[in-house]
Amino acid sequence: MQSHFAQARFSRRNFLTTSALFGVGTITASLRGSQQPASAGAADPALIEDLVAAYRILAQHEVLDGFGHVSSRHNRSANRFIMSRSLAPELVTPDDLIEFDLDGNAVDARGRAPYSERFIHAEIYRARADVKAVVHAHTPSLIPYGVTSVPLRPVFHMASFIGDSVPVFDIRKTFGMTDMLVSDTAKGRALAQTLGGKTCALMRGHGVVVVGPSIPIAVGRSIYLDLNARTQTQAMALGGGKVTYLDPQEAQKIMDAGENRGYERAWELWKSKASRP
Amino acid sequence: MQSHFAQARFSRRNFLTTSALFGVGTITASLRGSQQPASAGAADPALIEDLVAAYRILAQHEVLDGFGHVSSRHNRSANRFIMSRSLAPELVTPDDLIEFDLDGNAVDARGRAPYSERFIHAEIYRARADVKAVVHAHTPSLIPYGVTSVPLRPVFHMASFIGDSVPVFDIRKTFGMTDMLVSDTAKGRALAQTLGGKTCALMRGHGVVVVGPSIPIAVGRSIYLDLNARTQTQAMALGGGKVTYLDPQEAQKIMDAGENRGYERAWELWKSKASRP
Amino acid sequence: MQSHFAQARFSRRNFLTTSALFGVGTITASLRGSQQPASAGAADPALIEDLVAAYRILAQHEVLDGFGHVSSRHNRSANRFIMSRSLAPELVTPDDLIEFDLDGNAVDARGRAPYSERFIHAEIYRARADVKAVVHAHTPSLIPYGVTSVPLRPVFHMASFIGDSVPVFDIRKTFGMTDMLVSDTAKGRALAQTLGGKTCALMRGHGVVVVGPSIPIAVGRSIYLDLNARTQTQAMALGGGKVTYLDPQEAQKIMDAGENRGYERAWELWKSKASRP
Amino acid sequence: MQSHFAQARFSRRNFLTTSALFGVGTITASLRGSQQPASAGAADPALIEDLVAAYRILAQHEVLDGFGHVSSRHNRSANRFIMSRSLAPELVTPDDLIEFDLDGNAVDARGRAPYSERFIHAEIYRARADVKAVVHAHTPSLIPYGVTSVPLRPVFHMASFIGDSVPVFDIRKTFGMTDMLVSDTAKGRALAQTLGGKTCALMRGHGVVVVGPSIPIAVGRSIYLDLNARTQTQAMALGGGKVTYLDPQEAQKIMDAGENRGYERAWELWKSKASRP
Repeated sequence: MQSHFAQARFSRRNFLTTSALFGVGTITASLRGSQQPASAGAADPALIEDLVAAYRILAQHEVLDGFGHVSSRHNRSANRFIMSRSLAPELVTPDDLIEFDLDGNAVDARGRAPYSERFIHAEIYRARADVKAVVHAHTPSLIPYGVTSVPLRPVFHMASFIGDSVPVFDIRKTFGMTDMLVSDTAKGRALAQTLGGKTCALMRGHGVVVVGPSIPIAVGRSIYLDLNARTQTQAMALGGGKVTYLDPQEAQKIMDAGENRGYERAWELWKSKASRP
Repeated sequence: MQSHFAQARFSRRNFLTTSALFGVGTITASLRGSQQPASAGAADPALIEDLVAAYRILAQHEVLDGFGHVSSRHNRSANRFIMSRSLAPELVTPDDLIEFDLDGNAVDARGRAPYSERFIHAEIYRARADVKAVVHAHTPSLIPYGVTSVPLRPVFHMASFIGDSVPVFDIRKTFGMTDMLVSDTAKGRALAQTLGGKTCALMRGHGVVVVGPSIPIAVGRSIYLDLNARTQTQAMALGGGKVTYLDPQEAQKIMDAGENRGYERAWELWKSKASRP
Repeated sequence: MQSHFAQARFSRRNFLTTSALFGVGTITASLRGSQQPASAGAADPALIEDLVAAYRILAQHEVLDGFGHVSSRHNRSANRFIMSRSLAPELVTPDDLIEFDLDGNAVDARGRAPYSERFIHAEIYRARADVKAVVHAHTPSLIPYGVTSVPLRPVFHMASFIGDSVPVFDIRKTFGMTDMLVSDTAKGRALAQTLGGKTCALMRGHGVVVVGPSIPIAVGRSIYLDLNARTQTQAMALGGGKVTYLDPQEAQKIMDAGENRGYERAWELWKSKASRP
Repeated sequence: MQSHFAQARFSRRNFLTTSALFGVGTITASLRGSQQPASAGAADPALIEDLVAAYRILAQHEVLDGFGHVSSRHNRSANRFIMSRSLAPELVTPDDLIEFDLDGNAVDARGRAPYSERFIHAEIYRARADVKAVVHAHTPSLIPYGVTSVPLRPVFHMASFIGDSVPVFDIRKTFGMTDMLVSDTAKGRALAQTLGGKTCALMRGHGVVVVGPSIPIAVGRSIYLDLNARTQTQAMALGGGKVTYLDPQEAQKIMDAGENRGYERAWELWKSKASRP
């Protein structure tokens, strides 16, 4: 995808400036020449607020720790997404947010280093027009389902978004021995392919990526995927492996009925706790 | 059951007004025409205080999270019960409480959406004159006992209220493929039937319902049912499935002796912690 | 054992008065007529401070919850011990403490109800001159070792006080079907017999009793017994039951070397955290 | 190794004075006569700050509890290291730090008792010129891997520093029945031998030692070793023992790429939380 270098006129109310700074840190092979992607303009302040809250909420729930990240597609452009600079989730503030194009180029990094795995987000936004928010986490409860042959499946109604089971992306299959990081376009593309049209995908020996049509939904799914994994692990131990999962039709009906009302009820609570010191 | 539309005279001290507003949100098939159930009057302020505290206590104990609810039968009428509007438990205040009739119709919703699963509570109050409080939770430790064939049984004296074992309600058996929610009278009635005369019933792939003759007892049972489940899971793993449970006679003697003094000692502590910010 | 009714002269600095009030609540069969045990006098303020702290420390470590209790032998008399009135551990203050004789009679209850299981403490003080502090807890991690045939054994050096393994008291063996509570002298005596000369004993389907020559040691043992149980459970699951425990000689050498210096280092930390609001 | 007794001239800005006091508490056999090791001078204030923070961070993560310790090699001398006096980790302040030589002799204890297991640190600094920080912990999740024959191996990328698997030091093999403490030079030397060139070693029935080229890296490794152990335990239970670990080449590539950037991102967060009351 070519970047555009239009000199868009932006009012002073732009959240992100258009100064031509490159993201420092990892420069990927996909960066062709001196690309200065243009900003899509100021993002919706409500989206910014939710994105910053998402980092904190997921850290408070121990879905994220010092590592991992959340992003949102820009409300003004399908070709832009927003995520923090490389920083522990709990420390993220609006000033840490950077706008990126789908090649992972920062619009205006201003010397701030981006996450090396922004390509997880970029390639999913490219592949999935329906996705508006992405979470990448190292949540411990999920690791066992990526390093054994046991599929992660919905044991309770709060995890209906899993559908049948969660696919597993093993970077070794396509790329052999690596440092395990999805740190370029090709790896991001391979992960997006494993994700397909689903709501989440495990990353063997690494973590998970979870997507959604909004920040609250991506966050809610991340929290309940963790809870489902812990619960399935206990159920399998208790039942000697013989567990009654949600029937795919049940899962579908729950999704059709609004998937826990988009986690509205919980989102309100989580946001209120995220703003406490 | 027909609702009554008596124009009762209420003093200003009524906790709930009698304005003729319907509960918004899910309108069930059991609502016949424009029903405006009459209020039973102001509920006992001590009951209101305990009910609000119950929501917070159960959230602090992680029995409830952003979902789940507690209700109390109205002290003035066997045909009325009180629960919050649709809201995360930790956020519930007295102003969020709504009075309902046993068909799940709100007396005075004032635009506040009720929980879609209020029928869990309504039908139990209808079936069980002895029950004065009901808790519906998604407590993770309990899910395995609803999705495997392993019965949840009392491993220690604090769970004597289980009796022999906890029955399991599987909505699929009576209603086939659903969105898993007990969101109407028929489903509530089926759940109440599974509960029978017992103190709790698991809901396969969903959670649990716990009942009691008072709010402190329903809350105490919910907390100790969770603890019992976690402990039984560990005991079964340790003992290869061979575990000594409470003998039914032991369980009965504990109940006869006052069932942990109605959790008085703990309730005092829990209430004091619930009121902290 | 006969109680004495000496009219001791006490200064105003007595921590406990000598008013002749009986403990309300459970009156045991061992109370012969109107017994007013004489007080041993004011207990050492440092001991009172440590005892109150012990209740809070054990609650903060989740060894105790709303139930369970701690006691200390009176520094002035081997025939007296001190514990709280019936109250959740976290709420205990110096004013809640009651002095008892070894028959479980309160010196001066002043209308405060005692714990019905004070006989656990009384009979151990009677049987064990070396014991100066007793903890009774329902700690969940310990229950599996009382309800399966798996012995609780020291997996790490912090649990050397276990010796070879922890004995199990099953009230059913001597008393048949009961409400599981050690609520009289005969039951207390049977439990003390199972404890023998050891540092702790499990109570099947109920909890544990832990003893020590001082409050810090009884508290330290209670905390590390819980940790050892959780760790042993994991080790057994991991190793398919094949675990290397502390050799009895190792355990003995650790005890001879001072058993973790009497938990001094940790006690200082625990006390400082117990005094925070 | 001989200690030096040079009378170095120190400015008033020395962090540690040169008063000739011996460490009280355990005096080891390796102390020859009245040795007063000379100080290497004032340590870098940034190092002191990080060392004090490390104690608190590891306690907040429950890697350390009331026991365990952290040290740093002195920035001015390879023959000196710094650790706290014998104190619970959460209570450590700069004034509690003591400088030691590699025989475990305190430069200036000023009546403060040292940790009896300082020899764990001393002998590792002696054997490993690359090591600049050492952590000794009793972290419960690690104990099972030292008391069963199951090797602790990297299940996810955050534990690449494990390499193939973590060696186990069993004090019984070389020293027979002991009190399990590495409380002298000979035992420290044996542990250092088991550690070899690795990043960590388990201590059977006791805990772990973790090393690193800096304080943040030793702390990061301690935290992620705990997380890896918990995760491996779950994965083994889930997968019936059949788990896909990091390939040694993957582990190496992650190390070569900077091992999670030296935990920088997380260290910033951890330090900020350690300074809160």
